[in-house]
Amino acid sequence: MMSVLDILRRIEGGETTAENAIRATMEAIASKEDEIRAFARANADARAGAAGPLCGIAIGVKDIIDTADFVTEMGCPAIYGGWQPRGDAAIVTALKQAGATIAGKTKTTAFAASDAPDTRNPHNLAHTPGGSSSGSAAAVGAGVLPLALGTQTAGSVIRPASFCGAYAIKPSYRLIPTVGVKCFSWSLDTLGLFAGGIADLAYGLAALTGRGDLKLAAAGNAPRIGVVAQYFAGDPDPDGQAALDRAAQAAERAGATVRTIALSDIFGQAWRAQHIIQTFEAKHAFGWEYSERYHDVPPGIRRTLDSAQKIEPAAYDDARRIAHRVRRAMNDVFADIDVLLTFSAPGPAPSGLDSTGDAKFNRLWTLMGMPCVNVPGYVASGNLPVGVQIVAPFGQDDRALYAARFVDEALKKL
Amino acid sequence: MMSVLDILRRIEGGETTAENAIRATMEAIASKEDEIRAFARANADARAGAAGPLCGIAIGVKDIIDTADFVTEMGCPAIYGGWQPRGDAAIVTALKQAGATIAGKTKTTAFAASDAPDTRNPHNLAHTPGGSSSGSAAAVGAGVLPLALGTQTAGSVIRPASFCGAYAIKPSYRLIPTVGVKCFSWSLDTLGLFAGGIADLAYGLAALTGRGDLKLAAAGNAPRIGVVAQYFAGDPDPDGQAALDRAAQAAERAGATVRTIALSDIFGQAWRAQHIIQTFEAKHAFGWEYSERYHDVPPGIRRTLDSAQKIEPAAYDDARRIAHRVRRAMNDVFADIDVLLTFSAPGPAPSGLDSTGDAKFNRLWTLMGMPCVNVPGYVASGNLPVGVQIVAPFGQDDRALYAARFVDEALKKL
Repeated sequence: MMSVLDILRRIEGGETTAENAIRATMEAIASKEDEIRAFARANADARAGAAGPLCGIAIGVKDIIDTADFVTEMGCPAIYGGWQPRGDAAIVTALKQAGATIAGKTKTTAFAASDAPDTRNPHNLAHTPGGSSSGSAAAVGAGVLPLALGTQTAGSVIRPASFCGAYAIKPSYRLIPTVGVKCFSWSLDTLGLFAGGIADLAYGLAALTGRGDLKLAAAGNAPRIGVVAQYFAGDPDPDGQAALDRAAQAAERAGATVRTIALSDIFGQAWRAQHIIQTFEAKHAFGWEYSERYHDVPPGIRRTLDSAQKIEPAAYDDARRIAHRVRRAMNDVFADIDVLLTFSAPGPAPSGLDSTGDAKFNRLWTLMGMPCVNVPGYVASGNLPVGVQIVAPFGQDDRALYAARFVDEALKKL
Repeated sequence: MMSVLDILRRIEGGETTAENAIRATMEAIASKEDEIRAFARANADARAGAAGPLCGIAIGVKDIIDTADFVTEMGCPAIYGGWQPRGDAAIVTALKQAGATIAGKTKTTAFAASDAPDTRNPHNLAHTPGGSSSGSAAAVGAGVLPLALGTQTAGSVIRPASFCGAYAIKPSYRLIPTVGVKCFSWSLDTLGLFAGGIADLAYGLAALTGRGDLKLAAAGNAPRIGVVAQYFAGDPDPDGQAALDRAAQAAERAGATVRTIALSDIFGQAWRAQHIIQTFEAKHAFGWEYSERYHDVPPGIRRTLDSAQKIEPAAYDDARRIAHRVRRAMNDVFADIDVLLTFSAPGPAPSGLDSTGDAKFNRLWTLMGMPCVNVPGYVASGNLPVGVQIVAPFGQDDRALYAARFVDEALKKL
């Protein structure tokens, strides 16, 4: 995969220029685009941005994120074909201010829900890249893009990252403002980053948020890791279990304290509450599309919205109360561990392009607003990557990244 | 003032039709528009909507709320002139589904900040109607509109309602989804309603949220009221104090338990934190306007955004932590009272149209996400109304409305 830090080092060392680095990335994108179909539209005029921490870095922007310079079609041209926002989303302004270049708008499932684009998994073209941040995950996983933006409401950053072998972080809820991002569920929607390594994620997140403390310390203590199976969510595939076992073993060999954690029933309640909150809020967020453009709403999200009409406010209020209670209970889980280690996805990417896979192992953490990092490191048959997920307490994004780097290095040493 | 319930009763009783009721409202608006200038644009084709709880009711929609059928200029035509959103905001879909008619887009300060429109106070044209929901408050206060939408980030619903003698509710944070509303501060922005009476507010809120339990019970116990001066926010004008004293006295005479509550220092900390949160989030929310259209940003909000550039993430994080802590502490305040009674604004509307007044008595409650209701009932010299504010715990919007009705009836009996 491409490396943000590597590109910046080469620019700084005089091996290349920011302008050439952008050109090289755009050429790499073009060379694979026929195969993986990651972009709704590439930036034909991509040039290096102003001086800044990301000058020379081309970034993919998921096509539900408003851009003043590109149409934003939400993965649903039937309703948003040719739609040109007046302004940029807050995160797009942040990336321009950091000197980054928009590589283009990356393909998304319709409205970041379940109707898949034609994007293909870069490691096996017969398989889905996952979703909803399909194009961002595929382009980074393919090694043609150093950094990309995605969004997660259930599992739309971590799951496609796992399927495509990319590193990714879904930060703490609203660490990155979602202003100018098409809303699915205001309590859950979270912007995230895909990159070629943990240090790139930390650097990118620091550059885009102005939070320098997210840059990783050089070294430190081995983390105390709690491994969670999330039984309430059902079982993983054998490859998903193997990837988790391998990561746990690698971390332990590298000096981490690793033990299994059992989450009590209330976490299962919260896991179920996530779906109610997501669906109830989607009913309101897509109120106009559903009531005025029903027949243009793609079938997957339309079914979701059909079912959403039946959810009463009282059920939603109950779900929110459960979430509130479980966020507090989560503190106890971290009494004597630093991070959790769990599945990023049930297993490798499903075959075909119709289904983008199952977010069941992501829902709880998104609801809790906790930072999650995907670490690749296992490859199933068919050349299909399977990642694992590091989860830290809300607001401890640096801790999540630190532990993810530890596990990543441990896996590379195995 | 016009009454929603009255109009509906007359339609149901056959005294008028929904179509005629809409026409009458539009004529009333037109008859006063030269004087009060409440509308950015009125709906020239206003007709009765589909059958529903608000059929026959024309509603003013603040011009930072997206409408598929009307341009939405954010009070800033220099940047958003002629801007036509593709879809309706979630609340606009809800009002159409309830059968309501959009009376037009009401004037707002630029981006719901401090740069005032030319709207005038209906009770004294030499005075401001307040802001930022200037047109909505003025039109309802003038008696030419039965219902209107506003938004509050600091005090932009309750304060102009007080100045214009309108009833208004700023509900619990996100009781009404803000999807499709121009974001100022995602942690604070709250949609609210203006109407001619408490029963209208309850009815409108129930119709727009599908929460039937917000319709008020016919009778019940006299509320236990805590009167709070908010010393940390500074002093009110003598008229503001007189309005509060009068309301407290009226409530007590009508049988309420009324006692003074002193809020501890941490509430003052939260009051100060509100400003930091609002300003830091505005920096991100208006990132595109500030960085790409700086000279078109009106001077008041530009100054705010200039100062916002200096706020560090750490200061914002501290402010959020304070808010989180104080939300919990707020529970203790309500141990033996039902609602708080405090100032809606420091006093009557300032003279002139340049300043929309001071939100200092509204900031804390917006930060806490608590439902607030303005109850008119006092008139200062110059024919200027001064309201009082009822505040209930988060999620207890029905309690806020119930107590507000009690105080309102008590004031009318004085």
